[in-house]
Amino acid sequence: MGLDSSMLEDLKEEVLHANLMLVEEGLVRLTWGNVSGIDRDKGLFVIKPSGVAYENLTADSMVVLDLEGEVVEGKMRPSSDTPTHRILYREFEEIGGVTHTHSVNATMFSQAGCELPCQGTTHADHFYGTVPVVRELDEAEVAEDYETNTGLAIVECFREKEINPVEMPACFQKFHAPFTWGKNAIDSVKNSVALEVCAQMALGTWQLNADQGGLPRHILDKHYLRKHGAGAYYGQS
Amino acid sequence: MGLDSSMLEDLKEEVLHANLMLVEEGLVRLTWGNVSGIDRDKGLFVIKPSGVAYENLTADSMVVLDLEGEVVEGKMRPSSDTPTHRILYREFEEIGGVTHTHSVNATMFSQAGCELPCQGTTHADHFYGTVPVVRELDEAEVAEDYETNTGLAIVECFREKEINPVEMPACFQKFHAPFTWGKNAIDSVKNSVALEVCAQMALGTWQLNADQGGLPRHILDKHYLRKHGAGAYYGQS
Amino acid sequence: MGLDSSMLEDLKEEVLHANLMLVEEGLVRLTWGNVSGIDRDKGLFVIKPSGVAYENLTADSMVVLDLEGEVVEGKMRPSSDTPTHRILYREFEEIGGVTHTHSVNATMFSQAGCELPCQGTTHADHFYGTVPVVRELDEAEVAEDYETNTGLAIVECFREKEINPVEMPACFQKFHAPFTWGKNAIDSVKNSVALEVCAQMALGTWQLNADQGGLPRHILDKHYLRKHGAGAYYGQS
Amino acid sequence: MGLDSSMLEDLKEEVLHANLMLVEEGLVRLTWGNVSGIDRDKGLFVIKPSGVAYENLTADSMVVLDLEGEVVEGKMRPSSDTPTHRILYREFEEIGGVTHTHSVNATMFSQAGCELPCQGTTHADHFYGTVPVVRELDEAEVAEDYETNTGLAIVECFREKEINPVEMPACFQKFHAPFTWGKNAIDSVKNSVALEVCAQMALGTWQLNADQGGLPRHILDKHYLRKHGAGAYYGQS
Repeated sequence: MGLDSSMLEDLKEEVLHANLMLVEEGLVRLTWGNVSGIDRDKGLFVIKPSGVAYENLTADSMVVLDLEGEVVEGKMRPSSDTPTHRILYREFEEIGGVTHTHSVNATMFSQAGCELPCQGTTHADHFYGTVPVVRELDEAEVAEDYETNTGLAIVECFREKEINPVEMPACFQKFHAPFTWGKNAIDSVKNSVALEVCAQMALGTWQLNADQGGLPRHILDKHYLRKHGAGAYYGQS
Repeated sequence: MGLDSSMLEDLKEEVLHANLMLVEEGLVRLTWGNVSGIDRDKGLFVIKPSGVAYENLTADSMVVLDLEGEVVEGKMRPSSDTPTHRILYREFEEIGGVTHTHSVNATMFSQAGCELPCQGTTHADHFYGTVPVVRELDEAEVAEDYETNTGLAIVECFREKEINPVEMPACFQKFHAPFTWGKNAIDSVKNSVALEVCAQMALGTWQLNADQGGLPRHILDKHYLRKHGAGAYYGQS
Repeated sequence: MGLDSSMLEDLKEEVLHANLMLVEEGLVRLTWGNVSGIDRDKGLFVIKPSGVAYENLTADSMVVLDLEGEVVEGKMRPSSDTPTHRILYREFEEIGGVTHTHSVNATMFSQAGCELPCQGTTHADHFYGTVPVVRELDEAEVAEDYETNTGLAIVECFREKEINPVEMPACFQKFHAPFTWGKNAIDSVKNSVALEVCAQMALGTWQLNADQGGLPRHILDKHYLRKHGAGAYYGQS
Repeated sequence: MGLDSSMLEDLKEEVLHANLMLVEEGLVRLTWGNVSGIDRDKGLFVIKPSGVAYENLTADSMVVLDLEGEVVEGKMRPSSDTPTHRILYREFEEIGGVTHTHSVNATMFSQAGCELPCQGTTHADHFYGTVPVVRELDEAEVAEDYETNTGLAIVECFREKEINPVEMPACFQKFHAPFTWGKNAIDSVKNSVALEVCAQMALGTWQLNADQGGLPRHILDKHYLRKHGAGAYYGQS
């Protein structure tokens, strides 16, 4: 396939910026997180190189891959989580960016295997219902292809539970950490911010009131739809 | 009505500064908060535009509205919470500024539907008694006019409980988040800071001592009145 | 008494720096804290003006008082907590600086009326035993002279419990917040940092192990004395 | 022994940088932490001077010692914890750097005497199993040589439990605080970051799910070995 690499420069800049947002937003320590973004027309996605400190990242250091997982540009090895990103792009066709972090509170929920129900409007502004827990992989899946099978387990979870990944751009992988996605790379990071804050609030909410019953459905609909529905009126048009 | 927009330049600058304080004080993530301030003589209030990142705000981007909710100046759409601010200005005639955030600890109290009693002098320096929880809206109220009815529910709460909004410049809206107000825009943000810290302290205080019985009345009076009473002696005269 | 105000310039600079440390160390929000330092030879102490934002402080804005509580220099009103500082200087003759904050975790202990036992070496490096809770004032004490009587209650607590204020440079005033002191203004702030961190650690330690029995005495002695005893060998000589 | 001090300049720079990382990563307050690094060929290690503020550190202020504990270069007194570092270098021959902090969450585990089991992949990426608690010293050990015996207690713990210090570069000393180590000074600080975050996550994980059963063995192996095993593929080659 022919690649006019200059055509991806804007995407590389955006993915660079999105990875730096992980640091600014306090979602990562050391090198524990990665963001990617896809150009759907070209079928190519751009991702952070593996194990590189954020302060050393440049747009040029980003790695470009196709949806078969082949590197088509970049001198460095891509993030070790790249196969998970690839599966999410292949199976969730509406998404344009993917973020993986080990942010503290969302990772607690992953480790605890604890779903995050919608407790309030902060959650409803971003996630239309309960954030699910994706099962851990078994021995055969880990041995065969850990990172690819992680992506497949996420997809399996959403299909079995009939969850729309556009309305629910987040999950907790059990014993591991969160994955989020969105319309583009920046949007997927914003969903990671929202997930982290909602997870932090949820633990405190339960400590204050163990019987918190969840946001009533009509308010959930209102908040989600005023921002994401057909007649959305949040933000500038 | 005639508008000499240059007369509001100082207010726009103050409201801009107050919105930036939200970030400096750690009360907001992404675009989850807004501050407004009112010119009582003109009957006009100034508020943040909706969904705009704080680093992109300028005094010029602020939106000016009258108390009927009509935009009288500004090219951008005002905050989606503008109707709530408008009701508070209309019904609480002594206030000069309003702040809405989703700050973590105050939002936990909102989600938990948990009132915040006065546990100590930090609270007494800002809030003269228990911070109330305002009920969530029912389906009809949400469907009709969510943001206006949010303001009306706050006013209803204060009137039914006979709470003076000048002495209690804060509330938790159930399942949602806090609203605070004050003498002006900056003052309303300071009350948001105080509410956030008092909420954080309260959870920890209860974890240390589940039977904490609240600040004795004579100390509550002393702290509130030495700062806000007729003979106040805190700060510079 | 004659005052050569230029002779206190160094002390004013130190007290200014100590007040700014409150912000750098995350011990204060808004204007909720104050530090003072004393010149024992002159019998004069220097303290922050009341209610002034830390970023607006200058050495010149500091207020100088004598031990009778008379302002001998300075154009601004001194901190409303000045009478408490004065009593501590008058009664605890070995101390050179006093700090008062509403730092979050230490204030939780104050509000909870919960003593802080020595759980580990971080505590033992600064505080030689259990940090006491000072009782709240009664109605007459508040009505008569709240801030002076606060100081007297602290002194009463230490005398009744036979606690040496040099070995225990901290207390929690019930329902209010911590006071610390030290060899000089900066040292009193360092003790506020240590108190805040030890309070934060203590709550978490109890959540992990409700039966934590306290640091064994021989290790408490070792840590306190290697830093503060006659043969101290921590730091540079 | 002859010393060509200029040959250690690179190591001093690295140890300086590693000590400054303690501040950047939020692992220390005041002067509560120290990092060292060793030149195995020369048998010399470089460590922070005792009680010096991080902002005043320079490469020249670092202290150089041999493995008998003799200072061979440097004008300042070395960290009071130097004998502990020395024992770790002498007994754990594969390590190149040592870090000691009082970071909040790891110190809570130390004070609580609570081991840290592997709850998830964040932990597995750095620590191959349960982080152990090292017993406190008895009176004779403290009286004889506190800091040296601290090192010996760590070594005793790892030998008795047959823990490989390369696979488990961390421990909690009971009632005290964590020690970590690594391939070099920077690596030992990274392990302190990981330990602090894993400790923070663990308390929250248990609060969400008191029965959390630990990361399954096959996932622990996968994560540890993809980063540290013979066929590691994390990071750049």
